[in-house]
Parts: sequence; structure tokens; C-alpha cells
Amino acid sequence: MTTVFVKGLGLIGSTLIRAIRQKHPQYRIVGSDISTATLDFAIEQGLIDDAGTNLYQADQADFIILAGPVSAIVKDLHDLAQLELKPGVIITDVGSTKQTIIDAAQPLIERGDVFIGGHPMAGSHESGIQAGRVDLFKDAYYFLIPTSGSKGVSELKDLLSGLNVNWYLIHARQHDKIVAQLSHVPHVIATALMTQSAATFKDHRELLKLAAGGFKSTTRIAKSDPTMWSAIMHNNRELIVQQLDEYLYELQSLRQAITADDQEKLFAVFSKAKADREELDH
Amino acid sequence: MTTVFVKGLGLIGSTLIRAIRQKHPQYRIVGSDISTATLDFAIEQGLIDDAGTNLYQADQADFIILAGPVSAIVKDLHDLAQLELKPGVIITDVGSTKQTIIDAAQPLIERGDVFIGGHPMAGSHESGIQAGRVDLFKDAYYFLIPTSGSKGVSELKDLLSGLNVNWYLIHARQHDKIVAQLSHVPHVIATALMTQSAATFKDHRELLKLAAGGFKSTTRIAKSDPTMWSAIMHNNRELIVQQLDEYLYELQSLRQAITADDQEKLFAVFSKAKADREELDH
Repeated sequence: MTTVFVKGLGLIGSTLIRAIRQKHPQYRIVGSDISTATLDFAIEQGLIDDAGTNLYQADQADFIILAGPVSAIVKDLHDLAQLELKPGVIITDVGSTKQTIIDAAQPLIERGDVFIGGHPMAGSHESGIQAGRVDLFKDAYYFLIPTSGSKGVSELKDLLSGLNVNWYLIHARQHDKIVAQLSHVPHVIATALMTQSAATFKDHRELLKLAAGGFKSTTRIAKSDPTMWSAIMHNNRELIVQQLDEYLYELQSLRQAITADDQEKLFAVFSKAKADREELDH
Repeated sequence: MTTVFVKGLGLIGSTLIRAIRQKHPQYRIVGSDISTATLDFAIEQGLIDDAGTNLYQADQADFIILAGPVSAIVKDLHDLAQLELKPGVIITDVGSTKQTIIDAAQPLIERGDVFIGGHPMAGSHESGIQAGRVDLFKDAYYFLIPTSGSKGVSELKDLLSGLNVNWYLIHARQHDKIVAQLSHVPHVIATALMTQSAATFKDHRELLKLAAGGFKSTTRIAKSDPTMWSAIMHNNRELIVQQLDEYLYELQSLRQAITADDQEKLFAVFSKAKADREELDH
């Protein structure tokens, strides 16, 4: 019997479990979480067959999925390296920065276990087991960072085929730069706008309510989990600061064009940004 | 018979006309636009009863609505001051910056015509007469900037009651600061992110496609009309630069916290921004 061990039954972990259940109903799923309420819910809903904490039964699993925050994943990888795992086990994670995690997986990789980093590029500002749903990542990109050639990649794709994602194989550092640019910097930008707008209207908070759809759209991601985002800033700070500095440079250049009332440049920049952004909708 | 003159039959102008038609089907509506195709469409669809260019029949109107770009509105106000208008006429506009427009309306105001600046705080990244619809501004805020006490305000609200908006009376400069902060600065921020992201991946454009919903949401408003936005940068540049500088200060402060790995500060800022942003959804 194929056994899947999943540690961390939040938004992502429970979404992966739902997809595995749908596609491979015969697989046995063991769930681990720090929250008893979450484990109770998972058992009641039939999401998992057995529940535990820490690495309970991880040594009996054919697939190990680490779906906690990056700091937990790093610790889990160290702990797994102290255990004798099932031969042929495939280990993966869902952390949003990859170099830190690949580094932590080195002892496992060196002794021959198969580790494939993973990261689904979608999500929700919601969190928790009840927010997970089988189509959460549908049609989104799901990064895979193989570390032992192509070993285990097709098995992992098959395990998670119920997600209906677009798989994208990539190196850790390139992944971390992409997410710094397309996910982490946008989060910083949106947070700064929300923070500064709230400060501007601190004595007239009702004025914030005048915000139209454009403001709400631009700041939407500031609603995400602050614990997760603080950790991301820690784990990917070198590349976040690098891409943020490039962003600041661009913003200063636009500020200069506004100050100088350089209509030609402003029109050119707005036009190109419009065209680039429209391309993302196709 | 009540006659309404509307100059500029694009997204906003045609939306206002649709709302007037619905609520006051007996009113006569005269439309003016630089595009013959737009006027033809408006006549065919029964949106207007008569069509012309420039200020055709504006001198016979009980309501004059200027719905072109700000530069056109400013010119129209100067031209209107050369005409003898109908006694009791109420003049309004829909421009997104108000001080420039109120300044241009001074000659009309000084001779006793009633001018009430207006600005609906919603919209669409679409444009043109076919994108207008009667519920476009439903439940959004619609600023009014009266310049002759309360004269004409209730008549104007009644004329546009089919929009079902929340009216918000305000002074021109306060209006311009609010829109600088909640609309214009966000547009600059989103444009800079789109521009710099496209530059980062200029040799691998397919990587931009990896952007998840958060990036798309943050940059959505960069899709808006570049001509309109270049003009807004001109018309409100003093307040845009002022609020943008405050934003840059906040962003630099967050950058510093990331560089210093100041987890306590990052968590505090992310938490407050999350709470502030969630308040906007209620």
C-alpha cells in the first residue's frame, strides 16, 4: 500500500491532500499538525486516515510532503535526516523560498534520498485547513526543483495530478529571484501603500473608505498572513532587497518624470506597462 | 422641457446618460463628441436625442455635463464663459482632479452661473461609449465640490439619482489629496512594478507568465488609458509627488527592516496593514 505523510494541514497541505484523495483514493494518508483541532477536522472529514504530531510514521511513507512554514520545513528536513526512511521515498515541500530549503535537504540528498523542492504559485489570503480546496491551484504554475536528476519527478507529478497545475522545473536561485520579483516585492509594495495611506488618513479614517476598486486591488495581498510573510522576508531577503532596489530606481525615475511634467515619457511608460500587463491576461 | 447637454460620450459620459435616461425618460439629451462613430452609436441606441460637436446647443441646456478629459473640460469652461447660458443652468464635470477645474470655472462662477465639480470614484480599465453601463458606479462614492453654497446640489443629485451612488461633498484641495493618495499614487506604483518586472524578465518573457493572482491584482490598474493618466499626472502633480514622497519614505523604511532582518517590525507592519486592508472590505 502506498502511504503519504503530510506535515502541516493548512491551506496548502490540505489542498494537496484533497487532490491526492480524489486521484488516488486507495492511498493511505497520514497527517501531522501542531493543532489538535486541525487533526480532528481532517479525520472527521475523511481527509486523512491517521493523525499524529511531528514526524509520526514518516519513516513508513512512500511520499513525504512538508507543508508547514519554511522554518518548520527546515527543521523537519534536519529531523528526517536522523531517521531511517523507507527505501525509494520521495520527499517534497511547498515552501515559498527554495535555496534555504535545498540547503537544509543536503544531508538527505547526500545519503541518496530523493528530494524535490516544490512551490505552487497561487494561493489565497485565507488560511487554514477549511480554506483548502481541490481546485485552489488549478491552471496555476507549480514549481519543482529536482535535486537528483529527474528521479522521482514523474511519480510526484502523478501523486499530485489532481491539482491540475502547470508544472515548471527550475533551479533554486532562479526560482527565488522570480518569486522575489513577482510575489515578495509586490507584497512589500502593497503593504507600504496600505501603511502609508492609513497614516495619511489617521485622523479621518472614514476617508479611506472612499478608496475605489483600483486601490483595493493594488493592496489586496496585504491581507495575507503576517507570520508567513515575515518569515519569507527572512528567508529570501537578499533577493528581495536586490529586486526592491531595482523597483525603487524605477519608481524614482517615474517620480522625476512627474515632477518635470515630462508628458512624453509618462505616456510612453504608461503605454508600455498597459501592453505588458494586458499580455498577462492572455 | 428639461434639456441636458453632455459633452464627451465615453465610459463616464455614457454611463451618466444611461442613468438619466432611466430615471428621467422625458428629459431631452443633447450629446457632443469629437467622434462621429460615437455620436452615431448614441443616436442609434437612443441614448441621446440630438448630436453635435463642441458646445452645440449648450446654451439651451438646463444641465451641462462636461465628461471629457480634464484638458477638454478646462477649455469647455473657458468657452462656456463666452456664451450666454440659460438662466438657472447647473454646470458640472467628471474630471478626476478638481482644483484645476474649479480655477477654470471661476469666470462662470463670478458671473453667477452655478458650477458643481463632480467625480465618480469608480470606473473600469475599459473605455468608450460601449463600456458604459447604468450600474458602473453603483454603491461607489461620487464626490461633489459645490462652489455656490448648496445651490443646485439637490437638483444635480436628482438628475443623477439613477446611478445609485454615495454622494460625498468635499473641498477641491482635500479631494485632490484623497485621489492622489488613493488613486493616482497607486497607479504610479502599479505602473513602476509592471515596468520593472518586464525589464527583469526582458530576455525570458515567459517567466512573467508565472505571475500569480497577487501580482496580477497589484498591477491591474496599469491597464488603464495612458492618455488619461498622463494628463492626471500633469493636473495633480504637486499632490501626487507629495504623497508619493511619503510612500517612498515608508517603502525605504520597510526595505531597511528587511535588510536588518527586523522580524519584530516586519510582523508589526504586516499585521497592521492586514487589519487596515480588511477594514476596507466591510
